[in-house]
Amino acid sequence: MPHRIKAYVDSHRQELLAPLLSLLRQPSISAQGLGIRECATLLGEVMASAGIDTRVLETAGFPVVYGEAPGPAGAPTLLVYGHYDVQPAEPLSAWITPPFEPDLRDGRVYARGAGDNKGQLLAHVLAVRAFRGTGTPLPVNVKFLFEGEEESGSPNLLEFVSRHRDLLQADLVVTSDGPKHETGRPILFFGLRGLLYVELIARGPNRDLHSGHYGGLAPNPAMALCRLLATLKHPDGRVAVEGFYDDVVKPTPYERELLAAIPFTEEEARRDLDVAELDRVGDLHGLEAVMFAPSLNVSGITSGYGGAGSKTVIPSLAVAKIDMRLAEAQNPDDIYDKVCRHVRRYAPGVEVRRAPGGSPPSKTSPELPASQAVIRAVRAASGAEPVLMPLLGASMPDYIFTKVLGVPSIGVPYANPDEHNHSPNENLRLEDYYDGIVTSGYILRELAGLPAKGRT
Amino acid sequence: MPHRIKAYVDSHRQELLAPLLSLLRQPSISAQGLGIRECATLLGEVMASAGIDTRVLETAGFPVVYGEAPGPAGAPTLLVYGHYDVQPAEPLSAWITPPFEPDLRDGRVYARGAGDNKGQLLAHVLAVRAFRGTGTPLPVNVKFLFEGEEESGSPNLLEFVSRHRDLLQADLVVTSDGPKHETGRPILFFGLRGLLYVELIARGPNRDLHSGHYGGLAPNPAMALCRLLATLKHPDGRVAVEGFYDDVVKPTPYERELLAAIPFTEEEARRDLDVAELDRVGDLHGLEAVMFAPSLNVSGITSGYGGAGSKTVIPSLAVAKIDMRLAEAQNPDDIYDKVCRHVRRYAPGVEVRRAPGGSPPSKTSPELPASQAVIRAVRAASGAEPVLMPLLGASMPDYIFTKVLGVPSIGVPYANPDEHNHSPNENLRLEDYYDGIVTSGYILRELAGLPAKGRT
Repeated sequence: MPHRIKAYVDSHRQELLAPLLSLLRQPSISAQGLGIRECATLLGEVMASAGIDTRVLETAGFPVVYGEAPGPAGAPTLLVYGHYDVQPAEPLSAWITPPFEPDLRDGRVYARGAGDNKGQLLAHVLAVRAFRGTGTPLPVNVKFLFEGEEESGSPNLLEFVSRHRDLLQADLVVTSDGPKHETGRPILFFGLRGLLYVELIARGPNRDLHSGHYGGLAPNPAMALCRLLATLKHPDGRVAVEGFYDDVVKPTPYERELLAAIPFTEEEARRDLDVAELDRVGDLHGLEAVMFAPSLNVSGITSGYGGAGSKTVIPSLAVAKIDMRLAEAQNPDDIYDKVCRHVRRYAPGVEVRRAPGGSPPSKTSPELPASQAVIRAVRAASGAEPVLMPLLGASMPDYIFTKVLGVPSIGVPYANPDEHNHSPNENLRLEDYYDGIVTSGYILRELAGLPAKGRT
Repeated sequence: MPHRIKAYVDSHRQELLAPLLSLLRQPSISAQGLGIRECATLLGEVMASAGIDTRVLETAGFPVVYGEAPGPAGAPTLLVYGHYDVQPAEPLSAWITPPFEPDLRDGRVYARGAGDNKGQLLAHVLAVRAFRGTGTPLPVNVKFLFEGEEESGSPNLLEFVSRHRDLLQADLVVTSDGPKHETGRPILFFGLRGLLYVELIARGPNRDLHSGHYGGLAPNPAMALCRLLATLKHPDGRVAVEGFYDDVVKPTPYERELLAAIPFTEEEARRDLDVAELDRVGDLHGLEAVMFAPSLNVSGITSGYGGAGSKTVIPSLAVAKIDMRLAEAQNPDDIYDKVCRHVRRYAPGVEVRRAPGGSPPSKTSPELPASQAVIRAVRAASGAEPVLMPLLGASMPDYIFTKVLGVPSIGVPYANPDEHNHSPNENLRLEDYYDGIVTSGYILRELAGLPAKGRT
């Protein structure tokens, strides 16, 4: 069977590329509310034409595109999760070609959302089309849940999944998001850091002031904010918020083994990022710091004049955006309280505003039969040994599947390691796109052998 | 004579307002290179129509508009200095009416540059027109030097004044810039803080990164910059750069007397700015901190994402703009070296880039006969006792007149205290504008009694 899927993909490349280009031409920036609904409609059409029974389901925010493709009665059910919204494209001047005019060059498609996540979710959709195209019956039931708010922290997914608990029941959730390993080898990951996002808002005088007339008299909110931010980390990189690490669970011995087997050198990372030194978190460094520690990151600071030339002004406002990646079993509500306490102690005048969304961390055991089935499928499809990641740094609302829906969840990224997701010149290698479709086909086959929830 | 000038101004208000509105409609933002040359041409036309022999003189940057209106042979010469360029208008959304569409309301004209400095320089120009209009001979020689780069730190004025030393010789320089005292009483000031402007540039990874994949691994330049900025000041507000205060001259007893006579309460300032606490510089607070101490001010920070919603990114760049107001006798070159040493010590990877321009501080004795003549003129014109400021916080290239041209220099602001210069909704009270024209007339009369340089 998989050979027929592979042959189909090889002989239908243009037809399989067309829906991706079409989706990439449609902006869908959830942070700015731009083009979301148009993109949902378009995605629904693409799914329907792949032979998937598709519905656009409302949430309190942007809609979910839901689909079903039934397999044999009593077969296990796979739920494919993905998101059709994308990150903002700024800074626009850094793009070689415009972010929403997909450009084919060097065997890649360049566009915002190419890898994160339109190309990857489409690979699963088009696997169904490949089964249909080759006249092969689907070996399992497949459900699709594509949301439009992942890049804004999935504020309505929890409510949506809770409300549609029966509709969404499955034996496994698979998500293809993020990049493969730097070596090009496939990755499987079994857990995710959570996310807490806050804005710190420092207010100064009620208007911007002439620094010559008021410098020394009017307090500067940018300086107040910097002083506060400087208190958030110890010199060794550990977060200085009291109690921040209280609930962090140490990795199991098996997880440490997986970590040790991951090909990675700090020297290569340093060269790739072109930095003199890598960051570290206390004693942790390299992959350990990313995978087994929470992080606190300044993702933006804005205050005063940022244009060309010199402006001499005491700003009336300074804002920092901070994201915290949470490790198992940190709780976002608890960490938010601790951050608020820290700010009250060091800069009582600064306002802490919690962004909507955020999520607890999530974990699935790599020793489950479903986990092993996916490992076998990826190994067979790629002909390579996948890198097994106990935990990934990415933010996805995985906990909603593992902790609310009660279904194990595995990540299988299809994108090239240099996809530049969240950055200018985001791209997806076409080979990885087509291989993703084939891999999805293998996964469906391997899952057919599992016991299904409904079966007795 | 002055009564005829006053009567002329009172009966020609519309004609005297028209050239101001015309100048305010013309953007002239030196930081962005916007509309400068058009504004110079327009200003030259306004001056010529006031009966001033006017020339546009080139510099290596934006041109100087120069004018001469001769008085009696052997009479003293006044040089009026001003600037026709303006600050950037950002944030545009905070303006009630657009910055370059002057709006008359509440007895004021609202526009970028209304007070700083188009309205004030024009008052001196129109005083000459008033003398002409009343058929009164000018009592002294008047020269005008209006530059187009003051808001960018007057990068070419030093060279211009040095080259035109003979053309510009005078017995006194008068500048009308900045606001009157908060009480509405006129101000005279006899000195200015200098200015040093630097950008601090922190570089992180060679591209913006996904904070989930790289948080804990890639260094964050925004955090590095904040940590550096936090080291620039002691908790008590003093600048922590080693040797920063080495050359600061303490005020004379007479200057302390003048300071004590200035009407000012910290409580009023606090209420006006709507802040819980005012800033301070070690033991100095209130006006003392602004007038007798140098300052270090963060006038802008830019890094990462500053738009709506949440973006989770490790920025590749973080930039802070810092202005330092220098007190007599700090030297900008020396302070720049000290700042560089500080940055090398605390954040060796951060680049320090010095902005063009900047200036040493400047002082003129308030006891000179010319100083006393201007004090008398302002007192007579306003019917009020002027507030005498030994030193003002504003940045003007005064040192070029006092230290290079060798001519005493006095500041006589005409603008209302709430002119909101450098801020949104900049404005000039029309009464203050017309009073400025009259005051300029009084100054010309009082200066006539002084011995002129050329006289034996």
